[in-house]
Amino acid sequence: MRRGQGELRIGLLGCGTVGGAVVRLLRTNGAEIRRRTGVGLHLARVAVAHPEKSRGLVFDPGVLTGDAAEVVGDPQVDVIAEVMGGVEPARRLLLDAIERGKSVVTANKQLIARHGVELFGAAARAGVDLRLEASVGGGLPVIQPLKESLAANRVLEVAGILNGTTNYILTKMADEGWEFEEALQDAQRRGFAEADPTDDVDGHDAAAKLAILATIAFHTPVHADDVYREGIRRVSAQDIAFARELGFAVKLLALAREQQGRIEARVHPALLPLDHPLASIRNELNAVFVRGDFAGEVMTVGRGAGGEPTASAVVADLIDVARNHRAGAHGRVGWEASEPRPLRPIEDTASPVYLLMQVTDRPGVFARIAAIFGEEGVSIASIVQKSRGQTADIVIVTHTALESQMRRVLARLEGLDVLHTVRNAIRVAGEV
Amino acid sequence: MRRGQGELRIGLLGCGTVGGAVVRLLRTNGAEIRRRTGVGLHLARVAVAHPEKSRGLVFDPGVLTGDAAEVVGDPQVDVIAEVMGGVEPARRLLLDAIERGKSVVTANKQLIARHGVELFGAAARAGVDLRLEASVGGGLPVIQPLKESLAANRVLEVAGILNGTTNYILTKMADEGWEFEEALQDAQRRGFAEADPTDDVDGHDAAAKLAILATIAFHTPVHADDVYREGIRRVSAQDIAFARELGFAVKLLALAREQQGRIEARVHPALLPLDHPLASIRNELNAVFVRGDFAGEVMTVGRGAGGEPTASAVVADLIDVARNHRAGAHGRVGWEASEPRPLRPIEDTASPVYLLMQVTDRPGVFARIAAIFGEEGVSIASIVQKSRGQTADIVIVTHTALESQMRRVLARLEGLDVLHTVRNAIRVAGEV
Repeated sequence: MRRGQGELRIGLLGCGTVGGAVVRLLRTNGAEIRRRTGVGLHLARVAVAHPEKSRGLVFDPGVLTGDAAEVVGDPQVDVIAEVMGGVEPARRLLLDAIERGKSVVTANKQLIARHGVELFGAAARAGVDLRLEASVGGGLPVIQPLKESLAANRVLEVAGILNGTTNYILTKMADEGWEFEEALQDAQRRGFAEADPTDDVDGHDAAAKLAILATIAFHTPVHADDVYREGIRRVSAQDIAFARELGFAVKLLALAREQQGRIEARVHPALLPLDHPLASIRNELNAVFVRGDFAGEVMTVGRGAGGEPTASAVVADLIDVARNHRAGAHGRVGWEASEPRPLRPIEDTASPVYLLMQVTDRPGVFARIAAIFGEEGVSIASIVQKSRGQTADIVIVTHTALESQMRRVLARLEGLDVLHTVRNAIRVAGEV
Repeated sequence: MRRGQGELRIGLLGCGTVGGAVVRLLRTNGAEIRRRTGVGLHLARVAVAHPEKSRGLVFDPGVLTGDAAEVVGDPQVDVIAEVMGGVEPARRLLLDAIERGKSVVTANKQLIARHGVELFGAAARAGVDLRLEASVGGGLPVIQPLKESLAANRVLEVAGILNGTTNYILTKMADEGWEFEEALQDAQRRGFAEADPTDDVDGHDAAAKLAILATIAFHTPVHADDVYREGIRRVSAQDIAFARELGFAVKLLALAREQQGRIEARVHPALLPLDHPLASIRNELNAVFVRGDFAGEVMTVGRGAGGEPTASAVVADLIDVARNHRAGAHGRVGWEASEPRPLRPIEDTASPVYLLMQVTDRPGVFARIAAIFGEEGVSIASIVQKSRGQTADIVIVTHTALESQMRRVLARLEGLDVLHTVRNAIRVAGEV
């Protein structure tokens, strides 16, 4: 293949679900992409752990290798597309590529959520592109809209349903009345959840994506470990049923916002009012919601994972790199820092809270519970009580209260002799 | 203000609702935009029809002028932002700016939907940027995601709710049971509809936006007049009630798709299944839905009009031009044509159809109606009949039928003596 300014020679690191889809996309749409954009995307080298293993794809001799470093160092490779995952050796390989003046495209959320600022800095110094659309939301256009289409805004809030597995599980729990374990097993059977579901159900995946979104939206570094994180294992079918009765859906919410010069970033189950745009996002869909000071509220919805959607994002980034290659404009849009802003710890955040308690069903119990809320300055918005013979379930939704206040309420509730257990406490998004 | 590579001097044409918001945005967020991106957006000149009229904005002496051509010709102006609207003189002014080597940003949908290809060609020859994010969907990121984030896809379909006025009217008709005129007057009182609502309610506005989306998504020219167009004046409260009973919402749908190498583009009222992503878009919101061969279905929702959201898009485009200015990369992403494809006339399109008829309520009537459908090869999916004394309302939803078949059915129905009137025929989106 003739190489010109409009020819970009790609070194692909990893050829699993996403990498395989990248190869198929280039083969399916490569000629059309060349016709439209004038740039040819040529897959020069592919590094995989086991080159001898067949993956249903045929490569020219010399393309496949087991040595990723060889691909990075190959002078026949202009750009690296990293879809291998994991922090190391991906980090070292991408830094090496950048230092050699090669642009890089990555789908690696943990890498960017942990070492993004280091990589952005290296790319800026080397004058190359570092693009990461595929690291958040699969085929959903998220990073580029934030960096470019919404660039005129001061972003006030980024929220989303960033994990398809947990959204599928919570949807099934709501629709079928299933408990968490049953819905998880269903998700595993359908290939929406891994055999070890920790990364998804405990919120690690969503927290990494939120760290990336917050870093870009607020122009200040937010690390994966900066994101407060709770998973969905404690959410019960009962919580979901009570929530619905009160007009809410239960979702794993990822939320980052700026208030009074501090950045708050958290992933946890949340009650969303049924008319909230994110409440209607069902099954394995993802959604990202951005509020800008001029654009207002913008939401994007789509398939947030899977080989083909993620490949769509990887190849879009490659096309962008190719356009910069042709225009001699590498590094045209990097990560743009503004004044660094401190993080607001979870204790200083405020939300309304839903509480489900099991109490002894006798006179005066509710008065004792209500007194604790009152004494801690937390006001109650609504109450549902359901008798179950000896015991009763009480659901309370509070008005907005500081996390630290709610923790004092919870500690005092746990000490009440008439209270059997606080089954769950779930934050509510928005005002009540 | 010092001028460097990172300084872009803007000539603004028009200072009404959108132009005024552009000025306020630059004043509010200009310093932050400069801090992040390193580019300064300097409002050098503003052309308005009546410079003597106060618009609540104070400009330095010499900035305001009544002569737009003077702004275009001013050597102190690097880029033109056109928010004046109307085809002429906007077209002539932008062509003049482009020929002078100035990049242009426009919010002008009628101009692009009618002369886009001419302007794109001029911009490509001059090596300047022509950006138009604000021409479709106000602050919604739509054009850039299609051109860049989804560039690796073959787009199969673009659909949307592209007009906030009609969506507000249809939402009110559904929620309140109002007829069209009542909902229109409410929209006019709230400032969602113009005194002369033709542009919105007859679908001209949505058709222009769809022409732009189709031209970009399918890389082939689609002119505003190529779009088949029906407005919402004939939709009645009764249609909406029957549709809901059958599991549909009524929306003004804008739809463009490629099938067998031909492009179909149409704007008309449509029944959308209640679980269709566009069915839940309420009030004055807009939404754009794209189906790509790899990304799958992606939908973006937000405020599709208004000064501030539209200014967000105009200034995002200016930032993009500034980035190209700094990188010496003007014209980096133009309109990318692929093989031109012919349009499919409306007669050759196929949809299920909803029909509301008023008939004489006596035995054998339905058999005569059903016979006509059968003889024309149109199969019936569902029927609702409601007696009203002497007459009955019959609602029929057909399976997918060719437009030409349906026209024959309608012509024959109109000739039936027992049929008083076909009140409405509305296409259904998707399969029934």
